[in-house]
Amino acid sequence: MEGVIDDYQQPNDHSACASHRSATAVHDQGTVLWFTGLSASGKSTIANALDFALRAQGLKTCMLDGDVLRNGLCRDLGFSAVDREENVRRVAEVAALMADAGLTVMVALISPTRTARHHARSIVGSERFAEIFVDVPLAVAEQRDPKGLYRKARSGALHNFTGIDAPYETPVFPEVHLRSDVLSIGESVEDICAWLDRSGCSLYDVF
Amino acid sequence: MEGVIDDYQQPNDHSACASHRSATAVHDQGTVLWFTGLSASGKSTIANALDFALRAQGLKTCMLDGDVLRNGLCRDLGFSAVDREENVRRVAEVAALMADAGLTVMVALISPTRTARHHARSIVGSERFAEIFVDVPLAVAEQRDPKGLYRKARSGALHNFTGIDAPYETPVFPEVHLRSDVLSIGESVEDICAWLDRSGCSLYDVF
Repeated sequence: MEGVIDDYQQPNDHSACASHRSATAVHDQGTVLWFTGLSASGKSTIANALDFALRAQGLKTCMLDGDVLRNGLCRDLGFSAVDREENVRRVAEVAALMADAGLTVMVALISPTRTARHHARSIVGSERFAEIFVDVPLAVAEQRDPKGLYRKARSGALHNFTGIDAPYETPVFPEVHLRSDVLSIGESVEDICAWLDRSGCSLYDVF
Repeated sequence: MEGVIDDYQQPNDHSACASHRSATAVHDQGTVLWFTGLSASGKSTIANALDFALRAQGLKTCMLDGDVLRNGLCRDLGFSAVDREENVRRVAEVAALMADAGLTVMVALISPTRTARHHARSIVGSERFAEIFVDVPLAVAEQRDPKGLYRKARSGALHNFTGIDAPYETPVFPEVHLRSDVLSIGESVEDICAWLDRSGCSLYDVF
């Protein structure tokens, strides 16, 4: 079974990242940038690059990486459908708490189902939640395969692997849609910053 | 069964709260202040007062209140011994992530067992963890009973209630020991600030 369900494409905006951010208080609410996509799509790489850029501008940020959380908060969870939903729920709850504290939170999590991502959005609050779809053809992700997980999944040594024998439901209306096989990391970061500028998200230091 | 196990008393320090904190970067690590004690001991009240004082000094803070988390991150957990341990574990994991992001985190959680609190300390990292024992005689907590929980527990309508039919293991070497039936809220806050000053905890703004 090929698990990638693709039903929507959205053009990218390549305007430059604004350089005028200040570290002065404007809002008292943080923002959650929720990176979703296949394994090896580039979620963590782009989120980390954005994190670096935002911190350099004096913002308070936090990275919540799905792989890292699997060794901590979510260590008791497996990869069944139920456990995956619970994984997404917990990460969303933590992201919401961090946004409450005024942080800009980057979540890098496959979060394969629309239902779970919708749930995450509702937990965080739609007004401070942005879904960032890190889109790459399955063939490209499989070719990258930095951890050898696709190879294991194809050989049957790994089960419930997103894109192989578990579905990935592509976002329908993501706030930002990045084609990570076409864009450079820098261009992806610029696209996100451009969206943040347009949307007037609460990205300013509150303290 | 009376569930309060008391085996240690530690004198309080009443020196004044330092007023010289700055919002400039000194450390890049946050601190976790872990308030433990019986229900109605005053954990949340004191933690909130401290939170207010620290924020007024320009610090980035976050409150993790056990009662609130029971409606979010830990909503799937009950009050069995196993679920209570898992509750403490999750809160500690989140507190650690927030400390990583540079926040001063106040946790208000009964966290009745030494094992669970020890586990919390090991998750957060001992060098940035302070156990604050909010100590009150059971009789006083039961008299306060703001939510009527002790009454319910005594009547048998509520089971596994700490201090009544579930044990509270008093801290052996808490970093701060507050007798909340003797001290005012302001004195309690001062005691904590005095300890923070003495210990040189990472309470300074990092951004």
